[in-house]
Amino acid sequence: MVMMKLNAKILGLEADKPIVLLNKEDAEEIDVRPLDRVELIVGRKKVNCIVNIAEHFIKSGEIGLYRKISRYTNAKPNQLVDVIPSAPPMSIKYIKDKMAGKTLDDSAIRKIVEDTVERRLSEIELTAFVTALEYHGMTTSEVASLSRHMALTGKTLDLGKKDIYDKHSIGGVPGDKTSMMVVPVIGAAGLTIPKTSSRAITSPAGTADRFECLAPVDLNLEEIKRVVKKVNACLVWGGAVDLAPADDIFIKIEYPLSIDPLLLPSVMSKKKAVGAKYLVIDIPTGEGTKVKTTKDAEALAEKFITLGKKLGIQTVGASTFGEQPIGHGIGPALEAREALSTLMYGRGPEDIVDKVTTIAGMLLDFKMKKSGKEEALRLLKSGKAYKKLQEIIEAQGGDPNIKPDDLPIGPEKVEVKSSVSGVVGWIDNRAIVEIARASGTPKDKGAGIYLHKKIGDTVKKGDTLFDIYAEKKYKLERALEIAQSVRAVGVGKKYDMLLEKIPRVMDHPKYFILER
Amino acid sequence: MVMMKLNAKILGLEADKPIVLLNKEDAEEIDVRPLDRVELIVGRKKVNCIVNIAEHFIKSGEIGLYRKISRYTNAKPNQLVDVIPSAPPMSIKYIKDKMAGKTLDDSAIRKIVEDTVERRLSEIELTAFVTALEYHGMTTSEVASLSRHMALTGKTLDLGKKDIYDKHSIGGVPGDKTSMMVVPVIGAAGLTIPKTSSRAITSPAGTADRFECLAPVDLNLEEIKRVVKKVNACLVWGGAVDLAPADDIFIKIEYPLSIDPLLLPSVMSKKKAVGAKYLVIDIPTGEGTKVKTTKDAEALAEKFITLGKKLGIQTVGASTFGEQPIGHGIGPALEAREALSTLMYGRGPEDIVDKVTTIAGMLLDFKMKKSGKEEALRLLKSGKAYKKLQEIIEAQGGDPNIKPDDLPIGPEKVEVKSSVSGVVGWIDNRAIVEIARASGTPKDKGAGIYLHKKIGDTVKKGDTLFDIYAEKKYKLERALEIAQSVRAVGVGKKYDMLLEKIPRVMDHPKYFILER
Repeated sequence: MVMMKLNAKILGLEADKPIVLLNKEDAEEIDVRPLDRVELIVGRKKVNCIVNIAEHFIKSGEIGLYRKISRYTNAKPNQLVDVIPSAPPMSIKYIKDKMAGKTLDDSAIRKIVEDTVERRLSEIELTAFVTALEYHGMTTSEVASLSRHMALTGKTLDLGKKDIYDKHSIGGVPGDKTSMMVVPVIGAAGLTIPKTSSRAITSPAGTADRFECLAPVDLNLEEIKRVVKKVNACLVWGGAVDLAPADDIFIKIEYPLSIDPLLLPSVMSKKKAVGAKYLVIDIPTGEGTKVKTTKDAEALAEKFITLGKKLGIQTVGASTFGEQPIGHGIGPALEAREALSTLMYGRGPEDIVDKVTTIAGMLLDFKMKKSGKEEALRLLKSGKAYKKLQEIIEAQGGDPNIKPDDLPIGPEKVEVKSSVSGVVGWIDNRAIVEIARASGTPKDKGAGIYLHKKIGDTVKKGDTLFDIYAEKKYKLERALEIAQSVRAVGVGKKYDMLLEKIPRVMDHPKYFILER
Repeated sequence: MVMMKLNAKILGLEADKPIVLLNKEDAEEIDVRPLDRVELIVGRKKVNCIVNIAEHFIKSGEIGLYRKISRYTNAKPNQLVDVIPSAPPMSIKYIKDKMAGKTLDDSAIRKIVEDTVERRLSEIELTAFVTALEYHGMTTSEVASLSRHMALTGKTLDLGKKDIYDKHSIGGVPGDKTSMMVVPVIGAAGLTIPKTSSRAITSPAGTADRFECLAPVDLNLEEIKRVVKKVNACLVWGGAVDLAPADDIFIKIEYPLSIDPLLLPSVMSKKKAVGAKYLVIDIPTGEGTKVKTTKDAEALAEKFITLGKKLGIQTVGASTFGEQPIGHGIGPALEAREALSTLMYGRGPEDIVDKVTTIAGMLLDFKMKKSGKEEALRLLKSGKAYKKLQEIIEAQGGDPNIKPDDLPIGPEKVEVKSSVSGVVGWIDNRAIVEIARASGTPKDKGAGIYLHKKIGDTVKKGDTLFDIYAEKKYKLERALEIAQSVRAVGVGKKYDMLLEKIPRVMDHPKYFILER
């Protein structure tokens, strides 16, 4: 066994991987290359590290320790540490198998997921795995194994209850505040729904970003348990809880490549981790969303249902109209206002009310068989859902008496007006997202878009189509610049039949929706 | 346009990519994520950088500059620099096209190669590209474009001559000292052969490692020109010359994944860069090499020939017997000794002489039509090739009168003896490589293996099968340990017909040969 004793040099540097820096000569001596792994022994602590090579910054005889390593090992400056080249993780073999088109068994997938979470795999290896899944696809068993091990390698929420309800939208339509409204409806029906959500990646707002306008969402597992035990529902950010942490690592690979082969295990591992037994998957469908046709939506729903069966989660799918934003507000505060007001008054934009009661109704149907939608509408109109919302807000540490107008929007604002008269024929979700992102969402909670006109609405020349809000003037200007260069809202004669001239002049580059 | 002014913090850190470290909050403010790109403006210098995020090490308002960036921009500590998020490089779109199975045109490939060389692509993107080539394959035009742009993005050797000869082995067989012997033969024939070679990646020695025992090989482009003008041949390390630098970047991705989709452009870009017009591709063939059958060798040779036509390089292929090492020595000095001695005395191991004169003969045939092999043998036996070798050694700065025994081997040595009598039925190249690497090759030039028995040789119980040499005792022990656990040399009865029992017990894991 080759071993080398080197002097620790403590670096302040951070990395999400356990990196050590070796001098070029020392690395050659023990025959390790960049990205190879070494085992480090510091006193009685052992840790597996990834090697980077330095020619000048680290001298021969030294080893540079990144923050994560120096903290974990408690290494002191100049302390002698043992460095031993390690065999590459077994999972690399399985990744190569998948690259070669083989089907992986449960133990191979377990190893890959474990090594992913333990940060034993390099970006090259992770990318090779994710792209192999994209090219070769997965069997149902592979998807189930991935979901299971992605859940098992993270924390799990054990509420000691059997009947846990959950909903999930695969995303793709802006302004979709359904989750933060379905949860109080289901909670008001006395069912348990511990909803974890993500923050926006490519969209103007995620459920966690929206609900954060009303109450803290960064709860840890104990706090979530306490909230759910008290009010049988919550709306928290999943990222603070470390459920299925492999998913975050995979997303970092998928995002720059605009591929999404892990959609199913990503969603279902998190549902498994919270112990969900009944699940509705919302699949926004149509041009400008992720799923273009109801046929595609059906096929995707079938996959979720089959996978659900393997994981012990009763699942139904809902293909919902996604060709324009839901409601009027787009952006964290604008959406939170609209959701809060609809729950408070028991009425609001028709599409919101219909979507919320439909999804909630499908969840209630698991228990009641049929008539769930009516029950959901009753809970919304009667103010019971609002009361549950207040309980959730309070339990999570927010002000239960917060009013829509208490949520700051703007202060910068500009109105975008129509230059023609006619009827709104279409709304381009992608353009809406681009403008909203430019205005500052999701980081600036008060930024975003308020849509005055939606599909089918009559427009007179000079009418305001939408407002853009921003917290910062330069962001408003940037958003306006985009709004002027793309057509976000299409106004024309009611029976304009030409949808697209081919070849079409691309207004702006296609972008990729990763939100799940 | 979002822009941020940040205080430069000069880090001593090195990386092969232009990395800057931003504080998490600042990154959110200008909406960049890890691996996104920013443009940095420092005084009048502009540079494109890749973003890493730090939470503590870099404070809000600061930007950490890696060595490469701080040197290039001449930034001073605390100097205010402008940071602007940049659009991702266009080539990412083309990479996604290739991932989707599309064929790339010449300009798309040019952009990808340029962005690769300029370090504008992340490891994730590079891996996605390399794996896409592996999965989807390439058209002849794509391979030609890749070869051409990989050559054009590096330096080129312009000798002002039309008839440049070259040879290349795709590797895979240990102890192959053919190149360092073919070059003096061709040089002795009065032809121009500016041979650049690689160092070992996964093998015990590359041609550059071998020839370095006789003369310096780290010549720059001007020095190479001077040498070739003087003695019309050279044997140098390609890595010092920056020919087709994209190749080194691709190899770093291919290596950990054990895939080799860029074999053809890798080889041919370098031949193009030295202006080769006549080329022989040696394809070692057989069990234990990269190419298992002559049928596969033919197919690969055809590809090289077709590609050569597109690039203006007349190419022929040679499928050569590769089921055992060439000659007896394996390891830089052991191989250099054998090559030097064979050239000096005009005779040596039969397989070496036959292979060298065959390959050299095929090159001579380009000029003379047939009878090349006889001419090559004549040049070898007459001592003319040795004289040319001495000229090359001297021109490159070595001692032309160096003798085989002047090259130090060992000093540690152990003999591995046969425990049975019989005939050598097979030699396991992979085992030989593993033992030689463990003994210290290619770094320790005196380390390696001397094979006493080869296929067909009669062995008595107790006869030495091979010696292991090492520079360090612990490496010798490690090599011996491996030699005792694997069967490198198979001794049996002459007509033992059983090759393998299935399922076979794997002696040691399969490994991947990347040498080109």
